[in-house]
Amino acid sequence: MGLWYDETLDDHTRLGLRVKETLFSGRSSYQDIEVIDTVGFGRVLIIDKVFMTSEYDEFLYHEMLAQPALSTAPNIARVLVIGGGDGGTVREVLRHPDVKDCVMVEIDEMVVDVSKEYLPGIGTAWNDPRLDIRFIDGHEYVKRSTDEKYDVILLDGTDPVGPGAVLFDESFYAGCKRMLAPEGVMALQSESPLLMMDLFVQTQHRLRSLFSEVHPYLGPVPLYGTGIWSWTWCSDTGEPLRAIRERQEAIVEGSKAYNEELHQAVFALPNYVKRALKL
Amino acid sequence: MGLWYDETLDDHTRLGLRVKETLFSGRSSYQDIEVIDTVGFGRVLIIDKVFMTSEYDEFLYHEMLAQPALSTAPNIARVLVIGGGDGGTVREVLRHPDVKDCVMVEIDEMVVDVSKEYLPGIGTAWNDPRLDIRFIDGHEYVKRSTDEKYDVILLDGTDPVGPGAVLFDESFYAGCKRMLAPEGVMALQSESPLLMMDLFVQTQHRLRSLFSEVHPYLGPVPLYGTGIWSWTWCSDTGEPLRAIRERQEAIVEGSKAYNEELHQAVFALPNYVKRALKL
Repeated sequence: MGLWYDETLDDHTRLGLRVKETLFSGRSSYQDIEVIDTVGFGRVLIIDKVFMTSEYDEFLYHEMLAQPALSTAPNIARVLVIGGGDGGTVREVLRHPDVKDCVMVEIDEMVVDVSKEYLPGIGTAWNDPRLDIRFIDGHEYVKRSTDEKYDVILLDGTDPVGPGAVLFDESFYAGCKRMLAPEGVMALQSESPLLMMDLFVQTQHRLRSLFSEVHPYLGPVPLYGTGIWSWTWCSDTGEPLRAIRERQEAIVEGSKAYNEELHQAVFALPNYVKRALKL
Repeated sequence: MGLWYDETLDDHTRLGLRVKETLFSGRSSYQDIEVIDTVGFGRVLIIDKVFMTSEYDEFLYHEMLAQPALSTAPNIARVLVIGGGDGGTVREVLRHPDVKDCVMVEIDEMVVDVSKEYLPGIGTAWNDPRLDIRFIDGHEYVKRSTDEKYDVILLDGTDPVGPGAVLFDESFYAGCKRMLAPEGVMALQSESPLLMMDLFVQTQHRLRSLFSEVHPYLGPVPLYGTGIWSWTWCSDTGEPLRAIRERQEAIVEGSKAYNEELHQAVFALPNYVKRALKL
């Protein structure tokens, strides 16, 4: 058997995967990038020693980031994805025929190149003509944008360390809001309410200062090793539970996890989360 | 910093906890028992090298095993718990004033002794006069029982290896059913539908051959390292979503996770589970 690859959280808890083979290991201008093949999770993308996504469980993350927003936004013709270099989020976006343009802003071209080569099962929509990839810093992109508007914005940043840290600050969220159509919906990954409760709560407060509707939702992502993960649905209008039935139904059949009942269920918060958020 | 204590799943995935101190290490007639104090999860009970429960996340397991059944069964005067030597499940049962007798059948007295000494925050109901602990093999107990009837039965076995393996076989489930009142509800932990899908599906089939209503439900237990855990609600009558409102409300306030919306939400199954169960 191969060696273990461990991701360690705050030096107190670790998740280890048995490595069959290291497929890629390199350094871009921004970060260390690795792809390993594992026994339990299939191929795994690792950035700066942190597990990003795996063939085994990526659907749990990507469907949950994308489909609740895409099922509820009144319009979804123009979608912006920031981050998401593995291609899983844009794949989910482009499953919707109503999407006409999907702009993906990713700082690190090497993440996309490596994902195209080693994780072809995750990024299955790279050749979709509606996809427009721009290799620029998401924070800069949002700051400089003036007149672009999107119906849906999905933030698929890494973690609030390294080059992705700016994708968690308040001015970035405010910039995203400026780019959102008045009835638009933004969704983002918002870390774990269990092992990263402080960060989760801080993010909720930042979003609440900008949007009138801020609704965290929860689900499992085994690769992240914290037992539960969160995403957050944000808008100034609308309700996260009111899906557009026909659009939602069309997407459920091809989804590995997402369905109508799950959409409702993920927004139910356990008491420890409600109390931390004073809900 | 102390050493890591790792639990390994099928030699391909491991969850590791940094150990501050080993508080207990011994062997009963049945199994190896350890209690360690960890940085991330507080005190952790370990049996045969498998993490059983921790101070940090035990509520996620124990509330979910006990409260859906206790909130829906028409009567809850007599409750049987099989396993559960750490005391968390009987604590949840005895929070209900309607419970008049709670019989706990645990094979291994040393688990209870060790839990009483080292995990007093989990088993807070040991001195409740309604609790009747019997140190016998759960499988034998069920086989020999003739006229005892329970309103609710909770199966809190370990895993289908070692002395707890018999608590997963069909004759055991059939014996439990014989002891259940006609309108009674049984709930059990039923392993992970992610990393242990085969076992999960097998358990569902066994239960369906005995009960007309078999409903798995899902939630996180970070200590189990598989991203998601399952329990199953079984009965010949009734519906898992139809809670007895007043009884449920009385329990929600003192719960760390369980509430009305979460009760509904945990029964929503993702597509990969529905498809595996042909639902």
